Amino acid sequence: MDLEKLKVQIRDVHDFPTKGIVFRDLTTLFKDGAALHEVSQALADLYRDKGVTKVVGIESRGFIGGSILAYELGCGFVPARKPGKLPAVTVKKSYAKEYGVDTIELHSDAITSDDVVVLHDDLLATGGTMMACYELVKSMNPKKIYINFIVELTDLNGRKNLPSDCEITSLLKY
Amino acid sequence: MDLEKLKVQIRDVHDFPTKGIVFRDLTTLFKDGAALHEVSQALADLYRDKGVTKVVGIESRGFIGGSILAYELGCGFVPARKPGKLPAVTVKKSYAKEYGVDTIELHSDAITSDDVVVLHDDLLATGGTMMACYELVKSMNPKKIYINFIVELTDLNGRKNLPSDCEITSLLKY
Repeated sequence: MDLEKLKVQIRDVHDFPTKGIVFRDLTTLFKDGAALHEVSQALADLYRDKGVTKVVGIESRGFIGGSILAYELGCGFVPARKPGKLPAVTVKKSYAKEYGVDTIELHSDAITSDDVVVLHDDLLATGGTMMACYELVKSMNPKKIYINFIVELTDLNGRKNLPSDCEITSLLKY
Repeated sequence: MDLEKLKVQIRDVHDFPTKGIVFRDLTTLFKDGAALHEVSQALADLYRDKGVTKVVGIESRGFIGGSILAYELGCGFVPARKPGKLPAVTVKKSYAKEYGVDTIELHSDAITSDDVVVLHDDLLATGGTMMACYELVKSMNPKKIYINFIVELTDLNGRKNLPSDCEITSLLKY
């Protein structure tokens, strides 16, 4: 499978969300059935033999690839959400953003010590949200945690902000 | 397939988001791999012979079932998002909520006149968000539009706010 050719399905939007930024827009990939199938298979192929029991997707765009990945692996899907959205008892973690502070939340009973977990988001930039999600999941003491992205913006070097003892995979690098 | 037994996987959370409301929490269903598989198959079974080319999922919880449905049908997935989140040219629609006004957005090129579209959200309450999404998609002139939910709260009679000439399906009714 030539994953690089999937890059033509990703739209570059200049000056979004702010001037000077080139936004890698995956909606043009997701709306193409063949491309969605191919990227989903490629994600699942990374984890088929790893005994994964839960995929955590980060709100909102991480819900798309994350839920398909869970479905394809036959395991459960867990949403990591913005504050105040999850109805039952939660754990939460705040983290610094470029401007101000953001918070991410998980249901307290979403992950157990029997779980092997993949954390998924669509895109790795600075890694701040993913690191907060990792720390929340880690506090629930699962057997193993993997980290996964569809796209990685390598010039931002977000990997340096993520745990070094964790297998981190991305399908497409810019 | 006995779909009613999936109801035991749905958690009732009392007084969320406000006092007196019983929130039907699907996260307990999604986190169970077997239940996620079963509900996804049941959704897809509704549309396998209908030539669906795009599934539109409504942010955020509609991304979960919607993206799996698109994947299982082999078609594309399109996110309907809260304002300001989509990077390229959009169409948008505002609609009344219980308190104030909300807006939903789609990329202008997300749907074409060749498309057969399923609009998906996790839960039908009053139907306001879905109707706004329907009107946006309708303005793009697709061949056909179906509307789909996992859960329908029948006592709110949200169907009366949705188009009568459109096939509306829900898997589980309360």
